[in-house]
Amino acid sequence: MPEHFVIVGGDAAGMSAASRLARSMPRARITVFEREDVVSYAACGMPYHLDARIPNPKTLLIRTPADFAAAGVDVRIGHEVVDVDAVAAKLTVHAAGTRRIEMYDKLLFATGAHANVGSFSTDGVRNVFTFRKYVDMMVLASYLKYARPTDVTVVGGGYIGIEIAEVLTRRGAAVTLVEAAPSLMPGCLDTDVADLVSQELRHHGVTLRLGQPVTQIDVVRRRARRVQTASDAWPCDAVVIGVGVRPATELAVAAGVIIDDKGAIVTDETLRTNIAGLWAAGDCTTTIDLVTGRRTWVPLGPAANKQGRVAADNMSGRSTRFAGVVGTALVKAFELEIGRTGLTGQAAAEAGFDVAVTQITAGDRAPYYPGGNPTVVRLVADRATSRLLGGQVLGRSGAAGRINVIATALHARMGIEQFAGIDLGYAPPFAPVWDPLLVAVNQLMR
Amino acid sequence: MPEHFVIVGGDAAGMSAASRLARSMPRARITVFEREDVVSYAACGMPYHLDARIPNPKTLLIRTPADFAAAGVDVRIGHEVVDVDAVAAKLTVHAAGTRRIEMYDKLLFATGAHANVGSFSTDGVRNVFTFRKYVDMMVLASYLKYARPTDVTVVGGGYIGIEIAEVLTRRGAAVTLVEAAPSLMPGCLDTDVADLVSQELRHHGVTLRLGQPVTQIDVVRRRARRVQTASDAWPCDAVVIGVGVRPATELAVAAGVIIDDKGAIVTDETLRTNIAGLWAAGDCTTTIDLVTGRRTWVPLGPAANKQGRVAADNMSGRSTRFAGVVGTALVKAFELEIGRTGLTGQAAAEAGFDVAVTQITAGDRAPYYPGGNPTVVRLVADRATSRLLGGQVLGRSGAAGRINVIATALHARMGIEQFAGIDLGYAPPFAPVWDPLLVAVNQLMR
Repeated sequence: MPEHFVIVGGDAAGMSAASRLARSMPRARITVFEREDVVSYAACGMPYHLDARIPNPKTLLIRTPADFAAAGVDVRIGHEVVDVDAVAAKLTVHAAGTRRIEMYDKLLFATGAHANVGSFSTDGVRNVFTFRKYVDMMVLASYLKYARPTDVTVVGGGYIGIEIAEVLTRRGAAVTLVEAAPSLMPGCLDTDVADLVSQELRHHGVTLRLGQPVTQIDVVRRRARRVQTASDAWPCDAVVIGVGVRPATELAVAAGVIIDDKGAIVTDETLRTNIAGLWAAGDCTTTIDLVTGRRTWVPLGPAANKQGRVAADNMSGRSTRFAGVVGTALVKAFELEIGRTGLTGQAAAEAGFDVAVTQITAGDRAPYYPGGNPTVVRLVADRATSRLLGGQVLGRSGAAGRINVIATALHARMGIEQFAGIDLGYAPPFAPVWDPLLVAVNQLMR
Repeated sequence: MPEHFVIVGGDAAGMSAASRLARSMPRARITVFEREDVVSYAACGMPYHLDARIPNPKTLLIRTPADFAAAGVDVRIGHEVVDVDAVAAKLTVHAAGTRRIEMYDKLLFATGAHANVGSFSTDGVRNVFTFRKYVDMMVLASYLKYARPTDVTVVGGGYIGIEIAEVLTRRGAAVTLVEAAPSLMPGCLDTDVADLVSQELRHHGVTLRLGQPVTQIDVVRRRARRVQTASDAWPCDAVVIGVGVRPATELAVAAGVIIDDKGAIVTDETLRTNIAGLWAAGDCTTTIDLVTGRRTWVPLGPAANKQGRVAADNMSGRSTRFAGVVGTALVKAFELEIGRTGLTGQAAAEAGFDVAVTQITAGDRAPYYPGGNPTVVRLVADRATSRLLGGQVLGRSGAAGRINVIATALHARMGIEQFAGIDLGYAPPFAPVWDPLLVAVNQLMR
């Protein structure tokens, strides 16, 4: 009998693993169980279907179950794994009202994360939405098309909240964005940088309510009509909740897998859990923060894809490692590009570093060359060791891609003197002779 | 008497050093001797004055002698240093027919490089131009305006040749670009990548003649009329020669300073020459190639600026180092952006590495997001150690900025496994979930 690899969850991590296994283990049996109706969808692209930048939602379905079948992967959509028995190496699957037992040799949890909804009940309410799964996008897109809400409140000022605020504004809705913390993207950006993001959103007509936790959503006849904070209340005809996610690890926990304090699965660098035969990858798992060296949980797509491959390699007997992340992320808010990596100044202080921070604004092209824009660079370093700890970059027209240079330096544990010596490319159409990154690090060194 | 710092040469390295000294040594006397009439001009921006992208050439003069005077730097334009006597610590300057002796305490050679003209005599010929100095740009711009040449031959397919070919084509001239080597940017790009640059130039109407050294420029009545190679000849009404530069080190050599086989000054990491009291920075000096560890000569602006600062720091008694370069460069050819860093495959083989090369083409955005373009990434690594040795990136709309990620990895001496694990930023408007850099390194690892 061929070895049976089972993957629970058919998104980024799961399908990356499945593809990798199909290539490396052509004679193995590979089964993916996905409780939803689609696999391998581009979750990060979903906001842009709402403003028709991506007109056809099917283009977000990168590969279909039939594509995977052709590659030798048996994808079972609409199949929910409800129990994993690691001692007997078997699992229980529900599908279309039936219940089946399957045996496995090696199993990967790629169960992702659930959207938080805070304390609000969304069940049965017709105009309160979350935005995590493909079906969430389809439901919201349909509502926008037919109900044409004009006053939309977005709860949560993280990546999703900002992107949703942009696309709904572009559709012509009046958007109110509420964030409980005093600034946008809390934990991701320092306040000084987040304030520039706020400016961009306000400039494009988004009403921001920062530092105001939503206390209640008033529902009348199964429709949200009003949003309340402790000090204020305003009407709405739709609410989108984007207040983060939590690891979907109920199944793994029931199987005896160890999780951390956030509920995410603990693995080693080979993505192995504490239980033989069980691996984990993607948004349901922890990883190492390469800046602090501590275990962390950063549910983002690129790591999920990489982890899927690494888990597959190790499941197939080839030893590879997923070293960790530095927490790089990019987001676009209207014309403003925002990149962040490593520790914010605040996070670095909380982690016990003796923090040095600098923030500069510099042109992203030679000053005499047309089309340049100001770029903001914030760098965070450790005073004791001079090591770079993190960075934030804001700009336009591709300027935020510079965050990847900082990310690479963090992987290399570079000190600021070495960073200041990096031989960055220069030509007037691309950068000034002192790239904004170098302007920033030179100021940090002073 | 205050300490007297003398800087010979008022471009990137010299004026960076002067500015730095003025800040760190406010009580010192700082004199810059520049034999031309301008200082501190943006040489890399000059091509774009020719097609009026930079309409006012004065905007290329970043700072004037008066600006420097206000900062405490005595800039003497039109002053040519003709002798440096390191034993007596004095120098001889010619200016406006007079001859003066000046004493110095510490002297910096920032004498830059001369444009090569090959074996062609350009003296007294009215329509053959080089393009190195500000005055070269003014002369060529004036000629273009009044003589309106329609058939221009550009000799040399390096950075300058490509940029000049672009701007003259945009002005409406029929441009022939001749390069002695079989492909463009020899030594900078591997042939497979250079061929894509050729395609872009041809697509925009540039006639390329590759692998054809120019043997003769026929001059009739002080005007070039025809360009000849061994096998061919064609008419022209102007010729621009961009066949590289050579270090301007005659003065340093006469003073006893050691140069390398290319004629560039040898210094240590503090930019000190072999003679006490004499420093060197910028295009006249060698530096360390951080990939090979060998001494090299890479005359480019960013290093010149950095070296100017480091030399100034050390001249003022503060110990800093210029570690070296990885040879990063960016150039734009019409809509195509070209980035390169480190060793080409060919250079790596010549340096004795056991070379592994991969080249991929991948989208620079998520495939479903509008506006993406294919990006080409070529990576060069050492099979024996798995260390990354170099890279080349071609693309559009900011894609080539990715070269800086490779450059940073080269500074960190990263292996390809670590490079494959870099946590690069992802969001559909910026990049696909597998950035082209990661697609390339994943293929290289296979």
